[in-house]
Amino acid sequence: MKALVYGGPGQRSWAEVPDPAIVDPTDAIIRVDTVTICGTDLHILGGDVPTVAPGRVLGHEAVGTVTAVGPAVTTVAPGDRVLASCISACGRCRYCREGSYGQCRGGGGWILGHLVNGVQAEYARIPFADLSTYLLPAGVSDEAAVLLADILPTSYEVGVLNGRVRPGDTVAVVGTGPIGLAAIRTARLFSPGHIVAIDRADSRLEAAKRAGADLTLKPDQDPLAAIGRLTGGLGADVVIEAVGTPASFELCATLIRPGGHLANIGVHGKPATLHLEDLWIRNVTITTGLVDTSSTPTLLRMLAGGQLEVGDLITHRFPLDAMAEAYETFADPARSGALKVALSRA
Amino acid sequence: MKALVYGGPGQRSWAEVPDPAIVDPTDAIIRVDTVTICGTDLHILGGDVPTVAPGRVLGHEAVGTVTAVGPAVTTVAPGDRVLASCISACGRCRYCREGSYGQCRGGGGWILGHLVNGVQAEYARIPFADLSTYLLPAGVSDEAAVLLADILPTSYEVGVLNGRVRPGDTVAVVGTGPIGLAAIRTARLFSPGHIVAIDRADSRLEAAKRAGADLTLKPDQDPLAAIGRLTGGLGADVVIEAVGTPASFELCATLIRPGGHLANIGVHGKPATLHLEDLWIRNVTITTGLVDTSSTPTLLRMLAGGQLEVGDLITHRFPLDAMAEAYETFADPARSGALKVALSRA
Amino acid sequence: MKALVYGGPGQRSWAEVPDPAIVDPTDAIIRVDTVTICGTDLHILGGDVPTVAPGRVLGHEAVGTVTAVGPAVTTVAPGDRVLASCISACGRCRYCREGSYGQCRGGGGWILGHLVNGVQAEYARIPFADLSTYLLPAGVSDEAAVLLADILPTSYEVGVLNGRVRPGDTVAVVGTGPIGLAAIRTARLFSPGHIVAIDRADSRLEAAKRAGADLTLKPDQDPLAAIGRLTGGLGADVVIEAVGTPASFELCATLIRPGGHLANIGVHGKPATLHLEDLWIRNVTITTGLVDTSSTPTLLRMLAGGQLEVGDLITHRFPLDAMAEAYETFADPARSGALKVALSRA
Amino acid sequence: MKALVYGGPGQRSWAEVPDPAIVDPTDAIIRVDTVTICGTDLHILGGDVPTVAPGRVLGHEAVGTVTAVGPAVTTVAPGDRVLASCISACGRCRYCREGSYGQCRGGGGWILGHLVNGVQAEYARIPFADLSTYLLPAGVSDEAAVLLADILPTSYEVGVLNGRVRPGDTVAVVGTGPIGLAAIRTARLFSPGHIVAIDRADSRLEAAKRAGADLTLKPDQDPLAAIGRLTGGLGADVVIEAVGTPASFELCATLIRPGGHLANIGVHGKPATLHLEDLWIRNVTITTGLVDTSSTPTLLRMLAGGQLEVGDLITHRFPLDAMAEAYETFADPARSGALKVALSRA
Repeated sequence: MKALVYGGPGQRSWAEVPDPAIVDPTDAIIRVDTVTICGTDLHILGGDVPTVAPGRVLGHEAVGTVTAVGPAVTTVAPGDRVLASCISACGRCRYCREGSYGQCRGGGGWILGHLVNGVQAEYARIPFADLSTYLLPAGVSDEAAVLLADILPTSYEVGVLNGRVRPGDTVAVVGTGPIGLAAIRTARLFSPGHIVAIDRADSRLEAAKRAGADLTLKPDQDPLAAIGRLTGGLGADVVIEAVGTPASFELCATLIRPGGHLANIGVHGKPATLHLEDLWIRNVTITTGLVDTSSTPTLLRMLAGGQLEVGDLITHRFPLDAMAEAYETFADPARSGALKVALSRA
Repeated sequence: MKALVYGGPGQRSWAEVPDPAIVDPTDAIIRVDTVTICGTDLHILGGDVPTVAPGRVLGHEAVGTVTAVGPAVTTVAPGDRVLASCISACGRCRYCREGSYGQCRGGGGWILGHLVNGVQAEYARIPFADLSTYLLPAGVSDEAAVLLADILPTSYEVGVLNGRVRPGDTVAVVGTGPIGLAAIRTARLFSPGHIVAIDRADSRLEAAKRAGADLTLKPDQDPLAAIGRLTGGLGADVVIEAVGTPASFELCATLIRPGGHLANIGVHGKPATLHLEDLWIRNVTITTGLVDTSSTPTLLRMLAGGQLEVGDLITHRFPLDAMAEAYETFADPARSGALKVALSRA
Repeated sequence: MKALVYGGPGQRSWAEVPDPAIVDPTDAIIRVDTVTICGTDLHILGGDVPTVAPGRVLGHEAVGTVTAVGPAVTTVAPGDRVLASCISACGRCRYCREGSYGQCRGGGGWILGHLVNGVQAEYARIPFADLSTYLLPAGVSDEAAVLLADILPTSYEVGVLNGRVRPGDTVAVVGTGPIGLAAIRTARLFSPGHIVAIDRADSRLEAAKRAGADLTLKPDQDPLAAIGRLTGGLGADVVIEAVGTPASFELCATLIRPGGHLANIGVHGKPATLHLEDLWIRNVTITTGLVDTSSTPTLLRMLAGGQLEVGDLITHRFPLDAMAEAYETFADPARSGALKVALSRA
Repeated sequence: MKALVYGGPGQRSWAEVPDPAIVDPTDAIIRVDTVTICGTDLHILGGDVPTVAPGRVLGHEAVGTVTAVGPAVTTVAPGDRVLASCISACGRCRYCREGSYGQCRGGGGWILGHLVNGVQAEYARIPFADLSTYLLPAGVSDEAAVLLADILPTSYEVGVLNGRVRPGDTVAVVGTGPIGLAAIRTARLFSPGHIVAIDRADSRLEAAKRAGADLTLKPDQDPLAAIGRLTGGLGADVVIEAVGTPASFELCATLIRPGGHLANIGVHGKPATLHLEDLWIRNVTITTGLVDTSSTPTLLRMLAGGQLEVGDLITHRFPLDAMAEAYETFADPARSGALKVALSRA
């Protein structure tokens, strides 16, 4: 079969590789129907994730059809249309028992397209299939569902739930790429009073407005003052970091009100400066996290019920074997205007 | 009357000042029976707290006897023996309504010995007396009660409750001065499995053992490895920072397990480095806070019931007018071995 | 002035009474601009609330203009337009310190129109004004604001928050009078997947649909089966009781899924049967409560921000001195179709 | 092999039955080393649990040694010494994903000695072994560990955690049989201020004192007044029901303070009367539950660490084939004074 193979920093190819096969009794094999590309894949190609070995098939967000299952798989069967989640879960370790699948110590966690071959391929092996795939309800499109493999649960759990968004809150979202936009969408489930979106790109701020932000700003437009005007000078109840740079994190830390929450979603490659000389007295809570996907069943149910609009996050569509072109489009959003790209089987 | 007057950086005197008087209808006047000195007072004298004006009477931890009350005070009366808390609360603002008295926006918060004259004096005016003083139950000694003015609720709320200590947890306490020792004491209320105390001073580590730590280490004795041995390599469930330096905070951040809590109590004067490149994926929660004193009634009840041993935190005793000597003793713990000092009316 | 005076069971009159005056330093006097009638007032008239003495002025939900304040009042001043909440709070007792104002032990709680004279009058004395009145933001109408005196915070706190409504949940609301309708409205702030409204009256079920219920049923239309169809046979995540009869409560208890919440808002006059032989094994949580009004500031902010539509709960309008007619209209909803009635100063 | 076989109401025999064998790939077989009898087993024999078919081997609390595992079992292996929990968990269904193993919809929950053969036998098949057995740490005795199969996690989760015991609380435990005694023990992990134990039997009240109750009462000794004296007239913060009768539950409901929690552990066969006419206004929370055993790993760790004393709950010891005698002893505690009985392999 064909798959997107990582060849070391800067190198990728849509190449012929062996078909996957059942290895463990808890495995499933899926035919990939729709797959997308994540910013993390670009980080891997940039050489930032040395745990990815050359030769690895990338990709951790797919919708597919089960073609085979191991003897211990009980919840999905060949022919089932499933979401393949970015997080695999052994279901047995301390963290899985608490629903913290992202921190699985039993061989799961983020492994697809990282420690085992991923889903940017015609077929893929999904370890721990019972806890790592989700049956798709009728009426849910592949394009909507594939966004629940990573960015929707990530923005919801790590941003909105960790940040404890409450009705009437003022929420600031710093960074309005796909994950920030999904954070705006899912924050709205809690009826905040204001969502302030901050980004450098006009096109992304426009997307933020469409997603539900009522105030959009660039970082140089004094977001602290703007949020102060909305909050009687207090600051934001919840600030969501969705960029992953020291500057962005440090901006976020200035925007929180005393008693507020800063929820970091961004993937960081460098340390940030934490101004404890200001923050020690302000009762702030700062959280980080890899998605656990514990919310995936709820989000799927809401998607099926028409409660979650996500489709417009996909801006570009390709056939599966146009993987190279899809990568180029996704990697250059300033030129292409891409948010998420979808690749689908013909 | 006599009081400890701040004269600007490096300058203090036990000097004659006017007696305090009722200003607002919610004020009380107390005769100070027992008072202590806080590390924060030393910071003020070091010039680190520029909001303290020269001429200010210092001190925010006292036990006293009410001598007069304003017409709107209803919960204490002349003759009552009360705890004067480090935090005053208007009781009306958004933060007070949520019990976050430390963040009071209505004229309270930490004001005693900071923005208004404090309690290192023969008499003191206590604003918002109904919400800032606590009737002492019979049988509670002045020396035990005065520790509930600041360090007990601070270590309990900002350390133990923010850190969410649970039965069976492994708790690391970095810094075992008075506040760290109080954190060990109050952490034990939740029956953790291990309390690991980390400090540079042998005498403080010995005090930590007496307070209930089962493992004591110096920072250069590889606390990460030691905690790893206790936790199957995971790290501490809860880490409490009780020093207030970048190095201490950064050590704390390395000790937390995925999914764990870092509760900062330390008063910081400088920023720290936050290693988000490691932490972004580890589901950690970092909290800061000024004490709210919402736990003070409970702690007082536990003290009266014999459930809280605190008296041994006071190592040196002085008459009130030996204030200068008490400051010298407290300011040089390496020589004096002082934890907390108590000054009492003759 | 004129006021609605309770004369004992079955007896009320719009009668001349003395003007109210400041008694305690924390009192305010308001001129009543808009007032409404509560189901509880009908209970009082029915003789069900023996703590109400004959001669008492009834009413606990009003919007007014401050005309005088006691010397200890700091947050409102003559001329201010305020909401007078159904709950008064001393702000000093154990319960008030925790934000449980409804359980105030210091002289507050539900006292207006109950233990002290109420607001169905031309003027009213509001004890503990700092914690019992709320400045109205510009642009908020009297009619909308008066609904925040009781039914909105009651349905939100005692129904929606106690019930822990979460995005995607199936919520059943049993009883769709004004309080049930307000529960539907405020439940929607958390984006539930389904709201099932159950009532005997067609007109109320239609109002429930307009408020946001997606399924409406009569009690004899097998709500258990209907909710089972929506939830894969599990039952409702949250059930809100908004009637106050044994039959209604017992119906609610059959509708909860294992692990779900039953939030009782109804005012009950008789015991109900609790089927512990079924429930002991089902991990259910049952809550009761008098409103604390801790949410009132948030709800007011949301109202001012256009996030809360409430005005259509008022179906009938009267001048203040048509109090008798307003009572008759409100007391006979089957004939009048009344939900809430508003009486306003000419 | 020999096993305790249920023969229908009133009938049990220690009889020869076929050895168990691996059926599903997730099964394990254990040799039973120590087993105990539960009050529920007596209910079954009383005919109260019609879902138990005649011919069923009873028992759901054991410690054993693994003799065989199915091909999908990964966390235990032959030769391992394990705790066999009363709750089995598929690990895949909605409830298991939330850690609510007791409510498992995938074939688990309380099945041992109920829907499948149990552990009062020489050998037993344990379904879903990865999530239903727990490796015993070195140094933990069989007798201590077997108490973690049911009564310790039940009393801790359903009583203490559901009841939200906090430091300084007044906790009332109604019923001080084994489960009530375990509730007292585990409540102490949170350092309550008072534990009031209520039972009819002097011997059980003495055991309650040894377990940590500081006040013991019979139901006719006016517990409401006694708790009022401890709490300034408010009532208990937490009331734990550990009997399972209407009278006991109704007593519990009178003892809660406004804002308090009633945690029901008792297994009820009949409905109780819920006095909503008193409770509607008191902000109480009532919980029920079957144990989830989500706390079992923590409790095991605390047991291994010497933090949990449980051994004295076992009052009588028998060899495994004295099962009949053990049942007689356990079924007549008034005569035998039995709390828990342990049967061990020779």
